[in-house]
Amino acid sequence: MTVQSKSAARPSSVTTGPIIGSRKVYTSPEGRPDIRVPFREIALDPSAKEEPYRAYDCSGIYTDTGVTIDLEAGLPPIRSEWIAKRGFDKIEPRAVKPEDNGNVGADKIVPGCPAEIPIYGAKPGQLVTQYEYAKAGIVTEEMIYVAHRENMGRTKMIEGAEARVADGESFGAAIPAFITPEFVRSEIARGRAIIPANINHPELEPVIIGRNFLVKINGNIGNSAVTSGAAEEVEKLVWAIRWGSDTVMDLSTGRNIHNIRGWILRNSPVPIGTVPIYQALEKVDGDPTKLDWEVFKDTLIEQAEQGVDYFTIHAGVRLQYVPLTAKRVTGIVSRGGSIMAKWCLSKHRESFLYERFDEICDIMRKYDVSFSLGDGLRPGSNADANDAAQFGELETLGELTQVAWKKGCQVMIEGPGHVPMHKIKENMDKQLRECGEAPFYTLGPLTTDIAPGYDHITSAIGAAMIGWYGTAMLCYVTPKEHLGLPNRDDVKTGVITYRIAAHAADLAKGHPAAKLRDDAVSRARFEFRWEDQFNLALDPDTARSFHDETLPKEAHKVAHFCSMCGPKFCSMKITQDLRVEAERMVGMEEKAKEFAQKGKEIYLPEIAAE
Amino acid sequence: MTVQSKSAARPSSVTTGPIIGSRKVYTSPEGRPDIRVPFREIALDPSAKEEPYRAYDCSGIYTDTGVTIDLEAGLPPIRSEWIAKRGFDKIEPRAVKPEDNGNVGADKIVPGCPAEIPIYGAKPGQLVTQYEYAKAGIVTEEMIYVAHRENMGRTKMIEGAEARVADGESFGAAIPAFITPEFVRSEIARGRAIIPANINHPELEPVIIGRNFLVKINGNIGNSAVTSGAAEEVEKLVWAIRWGSDTVMDLSTGRNIHNIRGWILRNSPVPIGTVPIYQALEKVDGDPTKLDWEVFKDTLIEQAEQGVDYFTIHAGVRLQYVPLTAKRVTGIVSRGGSIMAKWCLSKHRESFLYERFDEICDIMRKYDVSFSLGDGLRPGSNADANDAAQFGELETLGELTQVAWKKGCQVMIEGPGHVPMHKIKENMDKQLRECGEAPFYTLGPLTTDIAPGYDHITSAIGAAMIGWYGTAMLCYVTPKEHLGLPNRDDVKTGVITYRIAAHAADLAKGHPAAKLRDDAVSRARFEFRWEDQFNLALDPDTARSFHDETLPKEAHKVAHFCSMCGPKFCSMKITQDLRVEAERMVGMEEKAKEFAQKGKEIYLPEIAAE
Repeated sequence: MTVQSKSAARPSSVTTGPIIGSRKVYTSPEGRPDIRVPFREIALDPSAKEEPYRAYDCSGIYTDTGVTIDLEAGLPPIRSEWIAKRGFDKIEPRAVKPEDNGNVGADKIVPGCPAEIPIYGAKPGQLVTQYEYAKAGIVTEEMIYVAHRENMGRTKMIEGAEARVADGESFGAAIPAFITPEFVRSEIARGRAIIPANINHPELEPVIIGRNFLVKINGNIGNSAVTSGAAEEVEKLVWAIRWGSDTVMDLSTGRNIHNIRGWILRNSPVPIGTVPIYQALEKVDGDPTKLDWEVFKDTLIEQAEQGVDYFTIHAGVRLQYVPLTAKRVTGIVSRGGSIMAKWCLSKHRESFLYERFDEICDIMRKYDVSFSLGDGLRPGSNADANDAAQFGELETLGELTQVAWKKGCQVMIEGPGHVPMHKIKENMDKQLRECGEAPFYTLGPLTTDIAPGYDHITSAIGAAMIGWYGTAMLCYVTPKEHLGLPNRDDVKTGVITYRIAAHAADLAKGHPAAKLRDDAVSRARFEFRWEDQFNLALDPDTARSFHDETLPKEAHKVAHFCSMCGPKFCSMKITQDLRVEAERMVGMEEKAKEFAQKGKEIYLPEIAAE
Repeated sequence: MTVQSKSAARPSSVTTGPIIGSRKVYTSPEGRPDIRVPFREIALDPSAKEEPYRAYDCSGIYTDTGVTIDLEAGLPPIRSEWIAKRGFDKIEPRAVKPEDNGNVGADKIVPGCPAEIPIYGAKPGQLVTQYEYAKAGIVTEEMIYVAHRENMGRTKMIEGAEARVADGESFGAAIPAFITPEFVRSEIARGRAIIPANINHPELEPVIIGRNFLVKINGNIGNSAVTSGAAEEVEKLVWAIRWGSDTVMDLSTGRNIHNIRGWILRNSPVPIGTVPIYQALEKVDGDPTKLDWEVFKDTLIEQAEQGVDYFTIHAGVRLQYVPLTAKRVTGIVSRGGSIMAKWCLSKHRESFLYERFDEICDIMRKYDVSFSLGDGLRPGSNADANDAAQFGELETLGELTQVAWKKGCQVMIEGPGHVPMHKIKENMDKQLRECGEAPFYTLGPLTTDIAPGYDHITSAIGAAMIGWYGTAMLCYVTPKEHLGLPNRDDVKTGVITYRIAAHAADLAKGHPAAKLRDDAVSRARFEFRWEDQFNLALDPDTARSFHDETLPKEAHKVAHFCSMCGPKFCSMKITQDLRVEAERMVGMEEKAKEFAQKGKEIYLPEIAAE
């Protein structure tokens, strides 16, 4: 099903309808029927005698069959009442300038999204960020929302039907059996978690990022050199969140970026991140040496008023670190990092992002834009991992975290990049230490450089590990990394791959309910409930089509075997047949044990306590 | 280029010619010009001013343009002189029986491979296995061969052009800076490594499997329900080794398997493994309860005489362990395991594989068939990982390892399966402890069960980790795992994915030369040598085609930017421009340090030693 819009120049269609085998449901926290939290419910075959499985769902109402999508009107602003009652100033937004859209000509301009929302800004001294509310002991609606959202499955675990001993190695994380709004508040107040939620992004379905919560993933979108229309860009967003991207970064450059960003924000249920220095650079004709505080500040305000939820700010690229990259194998590979390095070096001056960091905090606080402190000096190859430039910058990011917290801002920290397995944990440990446990947000890391074309895999290995060690959000890598622009299939592959990494990390950390889905898949597999196995999969379409390639007939979807071994050799079929016999034998064993136990009691009472 | 054979019923074509951008070269160990070891040499652009990169090459002469492939004649038997001089008995092979080929009718029979080799068997008491030679202090040609093969790049590292501090965490492995034949011998004598090399497989290019050597990978092939011809099966082998499968297991069942196995062995430069119980079961019409020692013994001899290099033997599935699987989520998922469990339980008798283990050793020793002690009770889901059934069997495998060693056999141990990340290391540690450091050979493990269709990725995460911890060989998993039979693309994806895992493990373990390839790719990337980057990649074809999707023009392959950021935003371009400046600044810093140092010497001589 696709949705048509009214004008050819405007978004024409996006992907809608549920992922096959599932439907959107909403539930509310106790006593708060006004807060409706979405889940994706997967019904199972009656033979399973199991409740439907409820999955975390970041796909927005695009997967809800009960609503009509109107991109021009934007998504329903579910946060607007929460925000309205907080008493912020309604402000006159900064007027759009020609350079905001890359000075695009009238013939090529993409019109702005007509959806209108009031623009707010906090008064000085007024509580505005989730961090400030948390510090003040106030539980916001966003906190209640994410608590309910994260509890998925936990009630079931606690109620004992699926009770099992907590099982995992959390490396010092403190994941509770049940998430309360108060727990969320306390984690945010400690700086250990953030809810990126600009007060000018009322369409947001809040999401929490922190190591005591589910590991999140980010997908990147962006226009290509050939001008993309708003339609294509919104569809990229919708496609990425459909498969499980918890946040999306818009890395567009060039023409129409202001207007396209508007379309994205008004139609995004997930936090949107940007790298404002990209747009600032556009405004000075791509020459880093022409950048200055005024153009950067203006860009921050422009994007904050539009509703961007987090900004990557490369304020840790200090002049003194730049020479440390001179002997690297791959120098500086972060775009933002290289821009700032060029600025610093060409002027032989300290970075204005570093020097003006207080002022940046004041702007971001006003709208509750979260910091994603950029790792501009991250290694671009295994050879450069964990070097003086990278770790020097990380220490500065730790210093800036303290400044941002003092200013009332929410902060997360970006991390590498390219790191061989044995050097990954050092990154995590140092980040936790230097940055006061602020959430870590890493790209991969890629564990080897020898497989361009497969870097979603080289990096999924590192991502799963660093997620286990404590990273709160993993930035995806697609198969096209280092080679080209990801297409639709690449984006999906990247998102699914990172959902795997994030979930593997949740399992290993000992998330109380993460195993529920694995076990549901495993039971379906063992009982030859093929449709359930497909529907419970991260990507039901691919699972089903792979099965059908070899055994396409419908009858085979209820067959008690598969194409790998055939009916004669099916180990699971044989085991099922064995089960009755084996259980009978367990009975015998237990009788034997019982007997042995009794024997102990009679002859050797002193050993009975063993 | 494809090779045509003479008859339609016989192999018609296999893939030949080098991987693009490379050529086959051979070098010899010092003083042994008769031993020619293949490598894949990748020439770099003259601007790189670098020697060609030499990669490990398990693809056989199929990638050598200098030879003509004749599948009917088989590969040149490079080991025949080494074997001939060892004085084994030339024996009359067991006559082929109709049931060896599944009682296939005359109209459907695949003729045997006409290539003829003498069949040998060791006399009682005569040294025959690599283990026995090693224990006797004798260095075989196979040991010399693998030592030379493994040293790839190490000389360069030692000679200092690329010298760097050894860097890695080996978890107790003892990887030397340089591999000598004597080191190989000592590792084999300690049981820590094996060279699977049946004396009836003279076409083999020897490969060593052990945790102090490069991590190896195995790919599985097998016929499908629709009878495959010999042509297709040999091509599956050739395709898997082309992309990097160090050994190949033939898991075929059904008709023509004896004859097809012959075609595979006579044309395989890599060790071939099988699971003899599969064929034994065929011989008793697929009914496990009809299996007995005689049919199994006959099958072992049949396959050993053909030249199979290693056998998976599920001798650890003891009667007492079977009830332990009764309450599992996924019971028994190993085919061999379920066959033996059914046998044990239906007769309520101890496994004949366990009871006849001494005799199995005697047969396998006679031809130097290596043991791959099967993990018939491996977990089929994360829920069942590390349970009593799995670990009980592993303890029995440890006991059997000692028996096999006493009998003179080479042994490796199979491992799981499905294991969440936090339970992986326990598997490795227990295996090393229970099995006296015999090489571990694991399937994955899959770190989550929720992604059917992507299990090459869920398992690559676990494979890289367990390879790092000490696993010697990783059995690949394709995207079709749990769903269907892998096609050609799936096999390639599985092999490349596992080459990534194995290499990531080598890097993390601190293999002295593993970084050479990563660094070569990284330099090519930073210097915009696109063709070099593609050619150095594990899969040059995919890397090139991904690049060309976005920027197809030839000119772009010399462009100093790529499609992701374009010329204006290219961080690497900016850094290259910066490098001169940054290096000048390093010079300044050093001057400053020098000055500070002098100051120290003048005023604070007592701190100078700091």
